Amino acid sequence: MILTDFLQWGGMNTAPEARYDLLTVGETLLRLSPPGQQRLDQARLFEIAVGGSELNVGCMLARLGRRVAWVSRLPAGPLGRIVDGEARRHGVDTRWVRWIESARLGLMFYEPGPEPRTSRVIYDRKYSAASELGFEDAPWEVLVQASAWVHLSGITPALGPSCRALVLQLAALTAAAGKPVSYDLNYRATLTSLAEARAVLEAIAPHLHLLVLAERDAQSVLGFTEAGENLATAIAARYGVPLVALSRPPDAEPGTLLLAHSEFRYVPRYAVDVVDRIGAGDSLVAGLIHGLLDGNSDLAIRFGAFAAAIGLATPGDINYLGPEDVARFHANTIGGLER
Amino acid sequence: MILTDFLQWGGMNTAPEARYDLLTVGETLLRLSPPGQQRLDQARLFEIAVGGSELNVGCMLARLGRRVAWVSRLPAGPLGRIVDGEARRHGVDTRWVRWIESARLGLMFYEPGPEPRTSRVIYDRKYSAASELGFEDAPWEVLVQASAWVHLSGITPALGPSCRALVLQLAALTAAAGKPVSYDLNYRATLTSLAEARAVLEAIAPHLHLLVLAERDAQSVLGFTEAGENLATAIAARYGVPLVALSRPPDAEPGTLLLAHSEFRYVPRYAVDVVDRIGAGDSLVAGLIHGLLDGNSDLAIRFGAFAAAIGLATPGDINYLGPEDVARFHANTIGGLER
Amino acid sequence: MILTDFLQWGGMNTAPEARYDLLTVGETLLRLSPPGQQRLDQARLFEIAVGGSELNVGCMLARLGRRVAWVSRLPAGPLGRIVDGEARRHGVDTRWVRWIESARLGLMFYEPGPEPRTSRVIYDRKYSAASELGFEDAPWEVLVQASAWVHLSGITPALGPSCRALVLQLAALTAAAGKPVSYDLNYRATLTSLAEARAVLEAIAPHLHLLVLAERDAQSVLGFTEAGENLATAIAARYGVPLVALSRPPDAEPGTLLLAHSEFRYVPRYAVDVVDRIGAGDSLVAGLIHGLLDGNSDLAIRFGAFAAAIGLATPGDINYLGPEDVARFHANTIGGLER
Amino acid sequence: MILTDFLQWGGMNTAPEARYDLLTVGETLLRLSPPGQQRLDQARLFEIAVGGSELNVGCMLARLGRRVAWVSRLPAGPLGRIVDGEARRHGVDTRWVRWIESARLGLMFYEPGPEPRTSRVIYDRKYSAASELGFEDAPWEVLVQASAWVHLSGITPALGPSCRALVLQLAALTAAAGKPVSYDLNYRATLTSLAEARAVLEAIAPHLHLLVLAERDAQSVLGFTEAGENLATAIAARYGVPLVALSRPPDAEPGTLLLAHSEFRYVPRYAVDVVDRIGAGDSLVAGLIHGLLDGNSDLAIRFGAFAAAIGLATPGDINYLGPEDVARFHANTIGGLER
Amino acid sequence: MILTDFLQWGGMNTAPEARYDLLTVGETLLRLSPPGQQRLDQARLFEIAVGGSELNVGCMLARLGRRVAWVSRLPAGPLGRIVDGEARRHGVDTRWVRWIESARLGLMFYEPGPEPRTSRVIYDRKYSAASELGFEDAPWEVLVQASAWVHLSGITPALGPSCRALVLQLAALTAAAGKPVSYDLNYRATLTSLAEARAVLEAIAPHLHLLVLAERDAQSVLGFTEAGENLATAIAARYGVPLVALSRPPDAEPGTLLLAHSEFRYVPRYAVDVVDRIGAGDSLVAGLIHGLLDGNSDLAIRFGAFAAAIGLATPGDINYLGPEDVARFHANTIGGLER
Amino acid sequence: MILTDFLQWGGMNTAPEARYDLLTVGETLLRLSPPGQQRLDQARLFEIAVGGSELNVGCMLARLGRRVAWVSRLPAGPLGRIVDGEARRHGVDTRWVRWIESARLGLMFYEPGPEPRTSRVIYDRKYSAASELGFEDAPWEVLVQASAWVHLSGITPALGPSCRALVLQLAALTAAAGKPVSYDLNYRATLTSLAEARAVLEAIAPHLHLLVLAERDAQSVLGFTEAGENLATAIAARYGVPLVALSRPPDAEPGTLLLAHSEFRYVPRYAVDVVDRIGAGDSLVAGLIHGLLDGNSDLAIRFGAFAAAIGLATPGDINYLGPEDVARFHANTIGGLER
Repeated sequence: MILTDFLQWGGMNTAPEARYDLLTVGETLLRLSPPGQQRLDQARLFEIAVGGSELNVGCMLARLGRRVAWVSRLPAGPLGRIVDGEARRHGVDTRWVRWIESARLGLMFYEPGPEPRTSRVIYDRKYSAASELGFEDAPWEVLVQASAWVHLSGITPALGPSCRALVLQLAALTAAAGKPVSYDLNYRATLTSLAEARAVLEAIAPHLHLLVLAERDAQSVLGFTEAGENLATAIAARYGVPLVALSRPPDAEPGTLLLAHSEFRYVPRYAVDVVDRIGAGDSLVAGLIHGLLDGNSDLAIRFGAFAAAIGLATPGDINYLGPEDVARFHANTIGGLER
Repeated sequence: MILTDFLQWGGMNTAPEARYDLLTVGETLLRLSPPGQQRLDQARLFEIAVGGSELNVGCMLARLGRRVAWVSRLPAGPLGRIVDGEARRHGVDTRWVRWIESARLGLMFYEPGPEPRTSRVIYDRKYSAASELGFEDAPWEVLVQASAWVHLSGITPALGPSCRALVLQLAALTAAAGKPVSYDLNYRATLTSLAEARAVLEAIAPHLHLLVLAERDAQSVLGFTEAGENLATAIAARYGVPLVALSRPPDAEPGTLLLAHSEFRYVPRYAVDVVDRIGAGDSLVAGLIHGLLDGNSDLAIRFGAFAAAIGLATPGDINYLGPEDVARFHANTIGGLER
Repeated sequence: MILTDFLQWGGMNTAPEARYDLLTVGETLLRLSPPGQQRLDQARLFEIAVGGSELNVGCMLARLGRRVAWVSRLPAGPLGRIVDGEARRHGVDTRWVRWIESARLGLMFYEPGPEPRTSRVIYDRKYSAASELGFEDAPWEVLVQASAWVHLSGITPALGPSCRALVLQLAALTAAAGKPVSYDLNYRATLTSLAEARAVLEAIAPHLHLLVLAERDAQSVLGFTEAGENLATAIAARYGVPLVALSRPPDAEPGTLLLAHSEFRYVPRYAVDVVDRIGAGDSLVAGLIHGLLDGNSDLAIRFGAFAAAIGLATPGDINYLGPEDVARFHANTIGGLER
Repeated sequence: MILTDFLQWGGMNTAPEARYDLLTVGETLLRLSPPGQQRLDQARLFEIAVGGSELNVGCMLARLGRRVAWVSRLPAGPLGRIVDGEARRHGVDTRWVRWIESARLGLMFYEPGPEPRTSRVIYDRKYSAASELGFEDAPWEVLVQASAWVHLSGITPALGPSCRALVLQLAALTAAAGKPVSYDLNYRATLTSLAEARAVLEAIAPHLHLLVLAERDAQSVLGFTEAGENLATAIAARYGVPLVALSRPPDAEPGTLLLAHSEFRYVPRYAVDVVDRIGAGDSLVAGLIHGLLDGNSDLAIRFGAFAAAIGLATPGDINYLGPEDVARFHANTIGGLER
Repeated sequence: MILTDFLQWGGMNTAPEARYDLLTVGETLLRLSPPGQQRLDQARLFEIAVGGSELNVGCMLARLGRRVAWVSRLPAGPLGRIVDGEARRHGVDTRWVRWIESARLGLMFYEPGPEPRTSRVIYDRKYSAASELGFEDAPWEVLVQASAWVHLSGITPALGPSCRALVLQLAALTAAAGKPVSYDLNYRATLTSLAEARAVLEAIAPHLHLLVLAERDAQSVLGFTEAGENLATAIAARYGVPLVALSRPPDAEPGTLLLAHSEFRYVPRYAVDVVDRIGAGDSLVAGLIHGLLDGNSDLAIRFGAFAAAIGLATPGDINYLGPEDVARFHANTIGGLER
Repeated sequence: MILTDFLQWGGMNTAPEARYDLLTVGETLLRLSPPGQQRLDQARLFEIAVGGSELNVGCMLARLGRRVAWVSRLPAGPLGRIVDGEARRHGVDTRWVRWIESARLGLMFYEPGPEPRTSRVIYDRKYSAASELGFEDAPWEVLVQASAWVHLSGITPALGPSCRALVLQLAALTAAAGKPVSYDLNYRATLTSLAEARAVLEAIAPHLHLLVLAERDAQSVLGFTEAGENLATAIAARYGVPLVALSRPPDAEPGTLLLAHSEFRYVPRYAVDVVDRIGAGDSLVAGLIHGLLDGNSDLAIRFGAFAAAIGLATPGDINYLGPEDVARFHANTIGGLER
């Protein structure tokens, strides 16, 4: 009885089957990048950050007040604690992380690319603790039971066979429990092949509620020849996914769009001073889930596009969006100087 | 006799009643801001600067060789010395500052806002030493007597009742001494209300030689419905102020303008790489006063607009404009690479 | 049933009446300090950290795997999030923090003091959100019920009347529930008077299980004339506190000591390269509680002294002690180079 | 015999008369610049770099795998070693540098100039070790014999009489040996006069294979009144130089062009986020020589323009272009995000 | 009359013949040093400071509330403004500085030397603006008339013939006006010879009130064979200087001492965490003058030794001593932690 | 003939069989460490350096003017170029490095350990490019032929089987060529076992001219029970190595010693302000080889101990010792302040 009361004060006054708004799983990397537009071999200092597609999504949602659990493997020791601490700082529940002795942490080196330089990520993530994530790492059935939404990314199955199996099992499990699963295709040529990425998608598609992908990847990985609305329609048709969010090239018209149950949602383009190219897609996903958790697909895509723009204008992978930004979004007072 | 000679070498060969080109009064804050476009809660370092509307004006004028006195209250100790030292570094005479034991220094936290983020200032200035500035803090009659121009800002009366009384008394005193008074409306919603800001302006207007304000504030605070030239004319008419400088929205045509004794002065727009949004208005004011001290209202507005553009392209509140910039302004060789 | 299982996976397989190992309450400040031994008015950058006596204790215990809840008030917005994020990063549960709109965050400016300079803290904490903490801010009865230990500090009652009342009520409540209360005298001349500090101690003493204080404060605040063992004995006798931990001057012999149920525990002195003088006392307290939670008063004082030494050799208020340090402590392999 | 083999492994399997792809000579300065768009008198830190027109060219070519020798004078001691170390880091052979006791190193202070500020270089290079470079400093005949190309700049003859004599003798010597000489006019008003710069060009022109100059300098220094193609043709005609590369104002159409043996080569303009204005011209020269060493004048100008654009987007004088950039150039995959 | 009043408010209520407490003259350098114990050729950033023996003395005295004028030559432009701004920041009156177009600023590169490395200064000050300081640069007669004390250093006469003549003329002029002159021998082997340094001292000695020198220099430059008290007595006797302050090797007993009118004053040694080795001697001089201006030779040497110790524990040449330190000195509460 | 001359100018006037003074081989890591005594999980920036035992030795020798070749494998790309550039900057010939596509660079994370913290290195070097170094990577026979000395370390054989085979073959090859081989035992518990380290030493010992090891490792790895002189004698006897250098615990008496052909050489202890604990042993080795190349074993050990002390007082692995230090060593003017 005392316990029941307790849960109610702590903001946990929801039914036990929905302790988390979001459950996600995947690898998070230590991100090292030179300051001030330097090239990697020019730097004498690296700025330290952390990033991983799923955790990026989770952190933004936690910042918006959602209860998020992230499952992963981290090496025991101070490097793993950098990642864990950053996740917790944003409010993500990391209690399900498994700490592995003598393991290594995946790394990414990010070199910014003011035009006409190329922004570049060098991954050093092979043999990492997280690359051996598997179904044995967490009590998935209960976690799924306790969660309102499960988010997965195409990066995880590309990390290794146990990761691949985990993602597919988890999607199936979640769908079987009647919970929505979102999947970001997130094709990375350095991690997997076109064929494998497509095979994974085809295996997972039947379980998906929301598929997010770039038009470019839809064409190269999945072999579609359409673009824009036609492409979204074709994807939804081929894979039977109720919601398809499509990010499009910078100058495409319309831009990012959402096909939700056969209806299109469009978003305005934001003028953006690009500060950091990494993580914008994850902000889009987080914004989509944030809206969809409230059952509002129009808000979902509009807020997702806003969050992605803020993410591009913010250093690092993780979007430090806060309640003030949400208030400005709703009040339509974005930009300018506030004092 | 020796003393007289002394004053003449030291660049003080002016009549005793004009020891200062400018007298100003107001609060100056310690400004803390994250480097490299970070958000406030993302930072691990704050860059330290100082800023306050009136001191910003004073520092720029002192850098141009004007003799400037700034009166304020500062907390005794190292934090107060940061402000005092910065003022003196630019050549501002701080001997009239009152040092208060056990007082606090006002602070501002500035978060830069690359688009579509919002540039934001969080003030933490309540209960500061300067918020209790009052008429007892300096020998105002003699100081006014010794000064060629007095500049005031609408921020000061918003700090508290003694500040408000001081500003009104000082304006009256200066006008009575036949000296010009300038006033920057500087409306800050977090410090005062529309009604109060308007009431202060109405009380001070009869004493003003120059009123500087943003078109936006003229409309919201003073209730005007006009814009551009019509607005300037209406302001000058309603308040009987000889000179009205109006800063206008980024894309308005014409831009910043000066109505001087019923004649309009326009300025070119500068292409600006915005580095820091704070202090540009103060640079405009300083440029205006610089020209008007020489009796040249055309130079005043042109130089003011140039200084404001340089200020936007410079980190910090205070405009590090120097004689080289003035030379480039006059030689019309702004921009490019000089070596 | 599912819920019960859930709590057991998450490392919460304890009885409901002991959800937290430690409950603590108090103000946490943003700490700003110049890098590289600079003086405050010499700096151009401030390093950002956070610190507050009780949260420092809580963070160290959370890093050691203890479940810690910290209750406080924070201003809504990014500055409050800096504090909250740091607490969460170390694993402290901040869900009971109250977020106050338009409030200010307490600040401290720390100037390091290599000899013969003086290390100095300038507090700017008056009127802070936390200075109005009160009994209405949390469901104390249930929280105490859910906690194994409550830690309080003499700083909190010095912040204002509602804080003082809260501390006394909370101590009484905890003692009544049969739970141990620890209290760090933590005398701060800039916050309170000798008489007030003594009055608070006298009011709270009957409820205490552990009293931690500096010999210097025992003499100046409480008026004792003894030193060392005699002083500890006299304190325990006068106030009837079962455990008294006394920190002593750098060159005293013996050093820090614990009088536990009439038995003395001594500790070795560590050679320390002092990096940061703030927070060492809080590390001592955290170490004491860590040992006492396991019922081992010998471990308590030895680990406390070790943690204090590590704290002095670590930048910032918060002790980044980790499991590796604990392993070295137990293996007696402190210091040197490990690779 | 062993020796011969040895030279072949080391990537030196070229005929002895061509040990270096490029021989160059000139002064290199320590470059000090404020971070983050600060003005010079606003800074509290200077970023350290090195730069000198000829060494900038040499470093970029060495990064592309060319064997480069750079001859200069440096002061013995750590400041000279900063320059030497940077040159060697990029692969430039510095064994021919003469180390001078008690000499000074030339300096440049660079202030960035976001619009409408002026980017500015303040030289402090008078009386430097390198300003007394002369023909006695190296075994020029053998070095020329061992090199495939010699590059000179108009800066060197402006440093002093011995430098001027050296440049002219070296050009003559190289031409007499049948090797190509390139010359970048590089007019610096603070180092020389229009008349002197023109006189030097006229003396050196008969020996040149490639002349690189800005349209602006062709007009002011050499007195031409033409522009674009006509100007290039006129220069080639007046001075009898087989190849003329002309850099043109930012908005000119066409942009940078190369007149090679009466044929024009044009380049596309790149969209550039300007990070640092210094050294772009040197990158153009390096790119030209890189292509011309392979006998490909079309590649030369296209790669030169690409390298110049990359240089503008990179901090510092020296272009950290690497093989990855070359690959992207050839694959036409410049810009974007690669991961 | 108004003017008279005016001077009295501004803290200038002294007789006109004593407008300055201290007049000093000399070169000030831009000081560049690597952070964090790096070697010069290891650094990628230089920390910027300014330093010059006489200005160091002047800044410390100005920080203590003394009115200080410093005369020098500075190059027009931002580099000169760094020096001027730093002097003004501490309260030194720089109105008598002459600004020279196209001149260079003297530089010093400081490499810290944790044991057993050698702390090292590389001067690059030849041909600087200040090296041509001369009697024509200021109205010396009136300045001396307006000053209570004149301080000179042996560095200035070593900079060039006009500097040497200036120092001698100024000492004679001051002595003739009945004002005290202090002289710090400050021998620098890289600037002058033993013989020249000795010749200058012999020429200036008849005019001196206070001579400050290191025991080591007294022996090597002036040829004394005594040490400690005997040495001070011998110096005073040979040169007829009323006050001789002698700094002695780190482990000598007694340490720094003052022979004042045949009476010895001793000081305690301070335990010092050495942060920066430059400027401690200047702090000693400033402390001496501070005490002697009040006619207290005992305070003079005790405060001088304290200031020197604080200087060693502070980064940079200039001693950021403030009123808080003075209060701690008088209250005998040096060191420790204050909060 | 021209070629012969050429080699003679370039400082290569030695016989072809001795083109390098030192040939060495091994892995070099990117070293990432937090600034300012922070703990690893406290940092937001990592300082970038490079280090590897053999390259550390090579860099110091190259700085002393020795011709050094270092052979390794590096990943193609900017991370590999950081290592390569640092090596070249110090003058090490890196032309024999093999660049491997898609490989990873070994990393080390260094956490400083002011007492009583533990200085700690976390290696992340498994699967690195260099861990697969093998005999096929360079023309060893000719390289040995061209070198005067070969240096190896016990770290390399611990990296993998091909590395182990390489080290043994190279030692045998060198000894067969009559050239001296030095070997630093360098036991690393995280890379290998006691048994393996001992087995490798036993296999390589017959080929060694100089064996360097720590007393602690001699006891734990090789099973000796002696200490000091007796230990050195026992090692030399058991393994038949002509020269044995033994580094001893900080407080042992005597300290580091060299047993050279049955004669002992001792060194003074230096007082050291420890700045960085890594690389001191490599400096000892480099100093030894430097002296032994000149046939002076007394100089060897004295210079080695000096270099090790300088290394401890210098940030980073690589010792930035320069000719000025060597001059001070010979002039016996170490420490103090030089200006």
